[in-house]
Parts: sequence; structure tokens; C-alpha cells
Amino acid sequence: MDYQIVDLIRKKRDNNTLSGNEIRYLVHQYAKGCLPDYQMSAFLMAAFLNGLNDEESTSLTHAMLSSGSVLDLSHIPGVKVDKHSTGGVGDKLSLILAPIVASLGVRVPMVSGRGLGHTGGTLDKLESIPGFRVDISLKKYVELVEKHGLVLAGQTNEMAPADKKMYALRDVTATVESIPLIAGSIMSKKLAEGIDALVLDVKYGSGAFMKTHTRAIELAQTLVDIGESFKKPTIAFISSMETPTGLAIGNWLEVLESIDVLQGNGPSDTLHQSTLLSGAMLLLAGTVPTIEAGIIEAKKAISSGKAFQKFREIVQAQGGDLSYIDRPDSRGTAKHCYPILSSNQGYITRLDAYLLGTLSVRLGAGRQQKEHDVDPLAGIRLEKKLGDYVQKGETLMTLHTNKDLDLDELERWVFSSIQWGASQAEPQPLISHILDKNGLRAYS
Amino acid sequence: MDYQIVDLIRKKRDNNTLSGNEIRYLVHQYAKGCLPDYQMSAFLMAAFLNGLNDEESTSLTHAMLSSGSVLDLSHIPGVKVDKHSTGGVGDKLSLILAPIVASLGVRVPMVSGRGLGHTGGTLDKLESIPGFRVDISLKKYVELVEKHGLVLAGQTNEMAPADKKMYALRDVTATVESIPLIAGSIMSKKLAEGIDALVLDVKYGSGAFMKTHTRAIELAQTLVDIGESFKKPTIAFISSMETPTGLAIGNWLEVLESIDVLQGNGPSDTLHQSTLLSGAMLLLAGTVPTIEAGIIEAKKAISSGKAFQKFREIVQAQGGDLSYIDRPDSRGTAKHCYPILSSNQGYITRLDAYLLGTLSVRLGAGRQQKEHDVDPLAGIRLEKKLGDYVQKGETLMTLHTNKDLDLDELERWVFSSIQWGASQAEPQPLISHILDKNGLRAYS
Repeated sequence: MDYQIVDLIRKKRDNNTLSGNEIRYLVHQYAKGCLPDYQMSAFLMAAFLNGLNDEESTSLTHAMLSSGSVLDLSHIPGVKVDKHSTGGVGDKLSLILAPIVASLGVRVPMVSGRGLGHTGGTLDKLESIPGFRVDISLKKYVELVEKHGLVLAGQTNEMAPADKKMYALRDVTATVESIPLIAGSIMSKKLAEGIDALVLDVKYGSGAFMKTHTRAIELAQTLVDIGESFKKPTIAFISSMETPTGLAIGNWLEVLESIDVLQGNGPSDTLHQSTLLSGAMLLLAGTVPTIEAGIIEAKKAISSGKAFQKFREIVQAQGGDLSYIDRPDSRGTAKHCYPILSSNQGYITRLDAYLLGTLSVRLGAGRQQKEHDVDPLAGIRLEKKLGDYVQKGETLMTLHTNKDLDLDELERWVFSSIQWGASQAEPQPLISHILDKNGLRAYS
Repeated sequence: MDYQIVDLIRKKRDNNTLSGNEIRYLVHQYAKGCLPDYQMSAFLMAAFLNGLNDEESTSLTHAMLSSGSVLDLSHIPGVKVDKHSTGGVGDKLSLILAPIVASLGVRVPMVSGRGLGHTGGTLDKLESIPGFRVDISLKKYVELVEKHGLVLAGQTNEMAPADKKMYALRDVTATVESIPLIAGSIMSKKLAEGIDALVLDVKYGSGAFMKTHTRAIELAQTLVDIGESFKKPTIAFISSMETPTGLAIGNWLEVLESIDVLQGNGPSDTLHQSTLLSGAMLLLAGTVPTIEAGIIEAKKAISSGKAFQKFREIVQAQGGDLSYIDRPDSRGTAKHCYPILSSNQGYITRLDAYLLGTLSVRLGAGRQQKEHDVDPLAGIRLEKKLGDYVQKGETLMTLHTNKDLDLDELERWVFSSIQWGASQAEPQPLISHILDKNGLRAYS
């Protein structure tokens, strides 16, 4: 069945519901190059402003998924589980939990993205390990899952190609922050990986794309609904991204922190979140009866060294130079390493993830334009975190950069990201809710 | 000042107001080819759905106008006045009133458009006169106004080029029917002509782009506001387009009817509207004290033969072959000329302009795709009109076409455009309101 594209745009513009066939036609024509960007962007803006209902969101996911091939990992025994985060600042959890879960015998086929806006991306972090290759063939992808129970790769041209094209278009037409469009994009990529189940880390707050808790829950609900409609058990956690995860922001700096956590060290929030998400993945894989039991297993995988060994194994399998993992200091540092000293005294009551994320981009850790390279060594290392008491003159953080930047400007940027108080702010829970097919409940 | 295009799109998406500088940047970058179609179409959809306020509409008009050159006719004495119609079926009023007004010594620099959708266009009508050239240079344009007080031309590349490009994009992205976008498009073209004042014929109903009276008033108000903000006195009439204007639909058929009216014959609705709009143009030109006085002058120009002489003069000046004006029968007819006979008896209580407009397109009088040519001889000649009593077997209309079409289908099409009654429907006023800087008032 052929449609007039302009009629389909008009239908969404007038807030009517598109059928599955209509959405598939639109998406597949676009993927094939038979529908020009300017019509897709008009449709995307109409969808952004008028929304898509549950059925349309599922149809969109299905259409983007079927624009390419879905990996078949069914010959590999066991439940294949992945985790996806909606993105944050300092969010290196994938680097930690993927080897934890794989070291416990559960297959983790993980397809990640690059840094976007003020947020970092797993692929950029992995590539800061010299030699590490994320652009691998489908054949190699399957081999890695078979042999190591783990793969850490980028989206290939075969996986949801419509999504790849639509995503790039959304980025330049202000149509990113739409729940159904985000959900379709995430789920089509994830379903293309060949997974059986999925854990989602849906973030809200300053450093997240969803600024409010309500919007994060709405997104999580849409994601879980789509996952379940594809018969892939899905668990979503709602987590705060008001302040960065851990102490490191920037690609290689985050790899270092991930190694720390995998070796039983590292910041407690990062360990806590990594093991929680690992526990949920293990639950979905059926190897533990509860998330709590999964957390215990995850912690054991760290303390026994199994998780770190799995990390080394996959780094080597994907071409990474292990000498940098074993002797991280040999990687060197950025040309400049500016300590920023406090001009205040008191408790840090706010340490803004968004501003630190944009600062890390400014330092070179992210892209200001799509075609730019990231600097693997650039970033921020926090010395103080939310809730800490700081004396005047103490180091708040160190800024790592290979660029020659105005130090006064950087200092002002740092200061603007911090709020001070005479006492600690009321602590907010890092994970507020859990959502699955049984509904939403507070997580404690 | 440079802006990030994506920020400007986001601003309109989030229903914020854009500054004049922001709108100018967007429009000028687009006209220069520095902004891709896909970003403009996302902006247009956001503007369509969230609207533009009065200031933004004026800024848009200004930006489209200043994307090209504004004709300077100030060296030509007197007030230059034009008329613009928002489009209808059988609307040949421009062909009649332009020579009327010009024959009375008022300069009429008229830039018209082509048929769009189910509506006809003045340029297509003029070009049905063999030899008539509407694509003329700016130099020639000015010369014609100087010498004949009249020019009937198409939009040149110099006139509001941004509008030309945006209009083509709107057509394929379902962003046509937006009042601020329509208003900006109309007014930028009209202001580029070098006019001092403008009469608008804003149509509503089945055969118009504004389907409701309310929307037509809203559009008229926006148009008058923009005109006045550019210090160009503007009068708008709100007129019904439920049924075609006159008896002829189709390019050469409408030229024939225009000649009839200019020679003192022709249908009364067409004469009435032509002389009314002429009267308003004469009022704006300052040659008469009231519209009513202007109507009297217009009628005199017809009865004296001055208006028809002016029509002949401009046809000749723009390359048209006068022999066809003087001996219209020599132009011949389309290959097929199908009379459609009534299978009913009673009063015609509805004669739908939209359906007859689309039928005329089917017959070849309009374009089904942008690049198609129109057939000058195709169209419809009504034998009966709204309110007429018809006997079974009487001819309702004749269909003129060079295509070989299914006569049964054409007959069904005609019948679907007519509703019957045992008595005449309550007559609706052709012109309901007049709107100018003094506000809206009923017209009677």
C-alpha cells in the first residue's frame, strides 16, 4: 500500500492517529532514501508537538527495527540481557556492570552510543582505551557473545538504520526531547541486538534529558510498555541525575574510575548503582530469585576479581591494549591539569550535573559539533562531592584539558555549578522508583 | 548577529516568541541556501502548530520581503493600488477589475500566482491568451506601469525569493493552511510590487482555503494588520466561496467570461464583485470619496468601453494576440465538450465550489503535480447556477477537456456537487464583511 507522504504528515499535524502501516511506510521510505529529510522533519515536529499514543509508539519502534536486521542469538544458550541508560554526566555504569554480569555466566550483548550534548557515551569511553574497537561486524559481534558472553559495540548499519538516520535529523531539528521518539529510538536499537530482556536506567534532573521526575516516569512507562509488547521482560529504574555519577567525568578518567570500582574501590554511589542494575539483569536472566540476591552476586563478582578479569578479557578481545588497563598511569594525562580551589566555605548543597557536563565538553571530553573528535584525556575529576564540607582554599575539582582555555572563565563555570549551605541539604534518594510489567513502585 | 538555527526552532517549538532579528536570520539564511530544507520545515511545522503572534507575523513578512528587492515605483505619480484574492473557483475578478481601475487613471502593478490545488490562478488564465507573457523583467514591469498604468505579471526571482522557496516547501510538508504563514506569504509578495495600498478579497467556504467565516476574518485581520504596519492602507472584504464565481471555471473559459463582463455582459455576481473591489481600489487611490462612488465610476468605465480598451491595450503590451480577444471563437474548443444533463428536478440549493474546482483540475484546467502543464481550453461552463430551477433532462453544465475520461465518473462527480430542494435555499450574501484599520463591519 502506498500513501501520499504529505497526507501522513497532515494526519499527525491534525492530531489524528496513524496506523501501523502508515508509520511503517513513512519510516521505511525514509530509511530507503525515498522520502526527503524535509518531509521527515516536518513529521517529527508534528509528532513532537502532538505526541504519539502507545500503539503508535510501538508501531514506530517496530518500523525502525524492521528497517534493518534483528540479530539472532537464539543459538547461544541462556537469557541475553542488556542495560540501557538514558544518559547522564559521569555515567560509566555500563563499563562496570557489563563485565560483572557476564562474569556470572549471563550473556550481555551491549550496543551503546556516543556522547550527546552534555552527556558522555559508552563508545567514546571505550575508545579512550588505546586499540579498543567498537565498530565491529555482525559476525564478530556474534562471536564475541559466544566466546566471551559479552560484546561492547556501536550500532552497525544493519541495526535499525531508520533510527540512525532519524536520530541524526532530530538532533538538528529540535525534535530530540520527545518521549515516544526517544522510546522508539532506544527500543529499536536494543531489540535489534538480539536481547531477551532489558534493564533500563531512566534518569531525571539537571544532567539528564528528562528534567523532571514525572517525565522520567512517563518515559520509563513507555519504554517498559514497548519492551513488554515485544515480549521482552523489562525493568526500569528511575534515578536522579542532579549531580554527576562518581567522581570522574570524561572518557579515560571514567575508565580509570570503572577499573577502580571493578577492583573493589571507587565511589560508593557508582558501586551501588552498578551492582543494583547488575542485580536486576541477573534477575531477568533467571540466575537469582530477587534483585537483592543479584546484588550480592554482583558484589561477589567484584570481590573475587572475576568481574575485573572479564573486563580485561573483553578489552583484549576487542583490540584494546591491556597494558593501559594494568598500568593506567602509562596512559599519561592531558597537557593542562588545573586544580580549582574553593573561594567559599561550607557544605556543597548542589553540584550541578548539567553545568559540569557542558564544562567537560568545553574541556574537550565531548563534541561541540557532530564531526568533532573527542579528547580521550579531557575531563573533570571531582575532589569534593555533593554534601561534602569544604574549607576555603581546598581543591574542589581538577580540570583536564589539552586546549588552551581561559582559566578565569573555567573557574567561573565551576563556581556557577556549586551552591553552598551552612548545613547539608536533605539527601535525595539516588534511585527513587522501579517500574516493570507489575507497575511502578518506590524503590528503597 | 548569528544564531544557532536549532535554538530558533526549539524556541518556536516551545511556544516562545521569536524576535524580529531571529526571524530575519532564519528567513534570510534559508533564502541564501545556508539553511537546509529540513530545518526550515521543522520550523514551519512548529510555527503552524504553535502559531505566530502579530509581531512575529509582521517580522516574517518583513524578512521575506527584504530577502529580495522592493520595486520602487515612487517616480510614477499617483497612488499605486493592487488587489489580492486568497483564491477560489472561477475567480476571474483580477482580469476584470485591473483594467477597470487602470482605465480610470489609477496605476495597478499586479503580481499574481498560478493555480493551486482546486483553485485557479490569474497567471494561468492570462497565459491562455496566445502569446501573453507573464514572466517579464523588472525593467519591463516598471515600463508597463509607466506607459499603461497596468502590469499583470508573475513573481520574479527578485520579489520575496524567500517566500517563493518557503511556499514550495510548505506545499509538500503539510504546512500551508496557517494564517500567519499565509499572511506573510501574501503580504511579502504584494509589498514587493511597489504598491501604496491594497484591496483584499478574503474568501471562505468550500472552494476557499479558509473553510470557515471565522478563519477568513482572522486571516483578513492579520493581513490588514500587516498592511497597516507597513503604512499601506488596506481594505479587506470577506466573501463567500461556497459556489463558483460566475459561470466559467477554467483558464480560457474565464478569459471569455471576463471579456463578457468588460463588454457590459456576463453574470451579475461577477460584475457585482468586480465593481465593488474596483470601487475600494479607487477609494484607496483617492480618486473617489466612497466605495459606492467608486462602484459608479467602475460601471461607467465598463459602459463607456474604456475598461475593455485597457484590457486590449495590456494584452497587446504583454505580447498577447489581440485577434483572439476580438474574435474569441477563433481560439477553438477542447476536443471533448460533454453536456451533463440533469437527472433531477428542483431547485439547486448547493453547487459546491470545491468539488467543481477539483473536477476542473481533473479535466486539465489545473495541475495535479507541480510540474504539470495546464490545458488552457479545459474547464467547466455552468448552464445552471445556485438557486436556479432545473427540469429533468436540462443541461446543468458542459465539461471541456482534451483528455479521454470516463464520462460516467465525470457525471457522478457533477451530481455529487449538487444538492436539490423543493424551494430555493435562503440566499447568503456574497460579501459579508469589510475590514480595514477602523475595524470589522458587516457589508451590505
